[in-house]
Amino acid sequence: MITLLTDFGIQDPFVAEMKGVILSICPDAVLVDISHDIGKFNVRMGAFVLASATRYFPSGAIHIAVVDPRVGSSRRPILVETKRSLYVGPDNGLLVPAAVRECIRHVYLLTNRSLMSETISATFHGRDLFAPVAAHLALGIAPKEVGAEITDYVQLPFSEPKFDRRGITCEASHIDGFGNVVTNIPERLFRRLDLDGKLIVSLRGKRLNARFVRTYSELRDRELGVLVGSHGFVEIACREASAAKRVGVRIGDLLRVRSA
Amino acid sequence: MITLLTDFGIQDPFVAEMKGVILSICPDAVLVDISHDIGKFNVRMGAFVLASATRYFPSGAIHIAVVDPRVGSSRRPILVETKRSLYVGPDNGLLVPAAVRECIRHVYLLTNRSLMSETISATFHGRDLFAPVAAHLALGIAPKEVGAEITDYVQLPFSEPKFDRRGITCEASHIDGFGNVVTNIPERLFRRLDLDGKLIVSLRGKRLNARFVRTYSELRDRELGVLVGSHGFVEIACREASAAKRVGVRIGDLLRVRSA
Amino acid sequence: MITLLTDFGIQDPFVAEMKGVILSICPDAVLVDISHDIGKFNVRMGAFVLASATRYFPSGAIHIAVVDPRVGSSRRPILVETKRSLYVGPDNGLLVPAAVRECIRHVYLLTNRSLMSETISATFHGRDLFAPVAAHLALGIAPKEVGAEITDYVQLPFSEPKFDRRGITCEASHIDGFGNVVTNIPERLFRRLDLDGKLIVSLRGKRLNARFVRTYSELRDRELGVLVGSHGFVEIACREASAAKRVGVRIGDLLRVRSA
Repeated sequence: MITLLTDFGIQDPFVAEMKGVILSICPDAVLVDISHDIGKFNVRMGAFVLASATRYFPSGAIHIAVVDPRVGSSRRPILVETKRSLYVGPDNGLLVPAAVRECIRHVYLLTNRSLMSETISATFHGRDLFAPVAAHLALGIAPKEVGAEITDYVQLPFSEPKFDRRGITCEASHIDGFGNVVTNIPERLFRRLDLDGKLIVSLRGKRLNARFVRTYSELRDRELGVLVGSHGFVEIACREASAAKRVGVRIGDLLRVRSA
Repeated sequence: MITLLTDFGIQDPFVAEMKGVILSICPDAVLVDISHDIGKFNVRMGAFVLASATRYFPSGAIHIAVVDPRVGSSRRPILVETKRSLYVGPDNGLLVPAAVRECIRHVYLLTNRSLMSETISATFHGRDLFAPVAAHLALGIAPKEVGAEITDYVQLPFSEPKFDRRGITCEASHIDGFGNVVTNIPERLFRRLDLDGKLIVSLRGKRLNARFVRTYSELRDRELGVLVGSHGFVEIACREASAAKRVGVRIGDLLRVRSA
Repeated sequence: MITLLTDFGIQDPFVAEMKGVILSICPDAVLVDISHDIGKFNVRMGAFVLASATRYFPSGAIHIAVVDPRVGSSRRPILVETKRSLYVGPDNGLLVPAAVRECIRHVYLLTNRSLMSETISATFHGRDLFAPVAAHLALGIAPKEVGAEITDYVQLPFSEPKFDRRGITCEASHIDGFGNVVTNIPERLFRRLDLDGKLIVSLRGKRLNARFVRTYSELRDRELGVLVGSHGFVEIACREASAAKRVGVRIGDLLRVRSA
């Protein structure tokens, strides 16, 4: 099984070309799309979506991820081997949050030229390098055959929520398609705070009333809710409407949540 | 074979997580997307698209559909067994129009906890409840193993076209990606009216000339056409342009079609 | 293996219906989407994307392509057999650029009624005609069983770049999702010109400085680049931004590239 995540969109032939290359090498590969609508060049968003999704795939899956603004430059192509999966993509931090959760075993540079396409374009390593290497891994070659092991792979800094006596300062790490604002507060830390009932969400001087709920449909029209989302992070949400629009939050914004 | 229809969009990892869960339980499942771009929370649109598509799938297919504004509330999760397929999703009317066409045999509540994911989030039953139940059905468990049979499942009211001596009053039940306005007039009823040739389409006091045609390319530039669409319903259409935009129709609007 | 390219979008059930029909006839078919977001009725764009993608698929693949403004009219349905693949779709030029690259062997009209759906709608040949014929081809029927051979199939005229002593006049043949402007200048012709270093790109009287580079990340912020894209054509690009927007280019526009 091979999954694909990119910022290529679904209009152009890019994703199909990657699939064609994989199926030409490994005709029995089962291909599953994770997302091709990652914001263009948005490595952080790609890392977030990848880390959310891969834990639900069977052990032994191979994940190709390509959000790669520096394709063709000195940025390195890598394979990350974890306890349960293989990740193939650029060495720009994209693969690490997903891999860390599964415990990283080895990281290899992709240098074995015989596993890549005959011609390697300067602008499309997804098709000419990552896809064929993943297909060869699906055929059963050992991870260490791709190239030398490295330890100095790139890791993106992710901000941590800050707890104090009265509340939490957190970051909007993702806004999903429904407009729910996913923060970087993990459920288990939030539960400790005992912030049940009435809350205040503040953002750039604005203070908004909110209510801690279990699910979206408990909210009244136009009411702001705070809940634990399906990926285990605290979310700001509205009922059948975009909380991001209502509150005016963008990814990366700092938010403060405290008891009312 | 398992199909998926949701309002989750294709940017977020939601659909991929459902697929990962299914393939973890039933690695040989063949997955086919029906649509993930149903309007957010638009149960009627989801019901329309599902009912259009599933008849073209092989007998024995399992269809998961999730447009579920009341996820996590008291709305019930159900399995609908028809003469030729199984439908898994929320009990909010979404599954019924598709299932009715195939003759409903039994409707079951999903209560057998052993068929669901270990942890069930309050906000994502698609991944934690519907996907694993569907995967177990694909593995071959009997429908009645999911839970107790019910008969009081939710059905959405759908309006019927009204015929009179001179014409028909109908509803715009769907607007497709080309801008064609699909009405709720079935072909066989329309044929009875003998409304060939020149027609008048009226909408909120506006009266527009139209022509009954067999296919889009018979229309002249900017001409309005009335034809029988590929799902067997009467459509209002333009040639290589959006009839919905030109006429100013929205889903749910009432239209009147009569002889000129 | 069967691939699909259409201008149907991914909201409506159209693509799923085609897949359901194929899998009903040939349950073991491996289906791969090339793109369903071709501009509505844009046969040229469809032809470009199809020709870019299919060369990466294994020999023996069957490609269905449907961008078909004249569906249901006198335009003919055809099968194109090349040295390595089969192409099924309308006779409007859509299939030819992809097929020509693989050397066309035979072109057949689709007339064998027993290979099509029982009912053929006037507006959706993708589902009722092209999909079932492709599925039967996947089951192993001989190409010549679909109907009589023809030689007068439709070919779209494509403009060629014009070279002179100082530069090239070319056409913007595609704008990809990143905003890169793909021209009709093939790499091998461009290399001959020795246009390294500083260049001038002109468009409708506007003259813009550009630089010949190997890959996007060599460009500075807001700098315009000229490079050889991954499909072997010269592109106008910006770093992490849309060159099409910055320059104001639309598909079909004439551009001139010359030494500064």
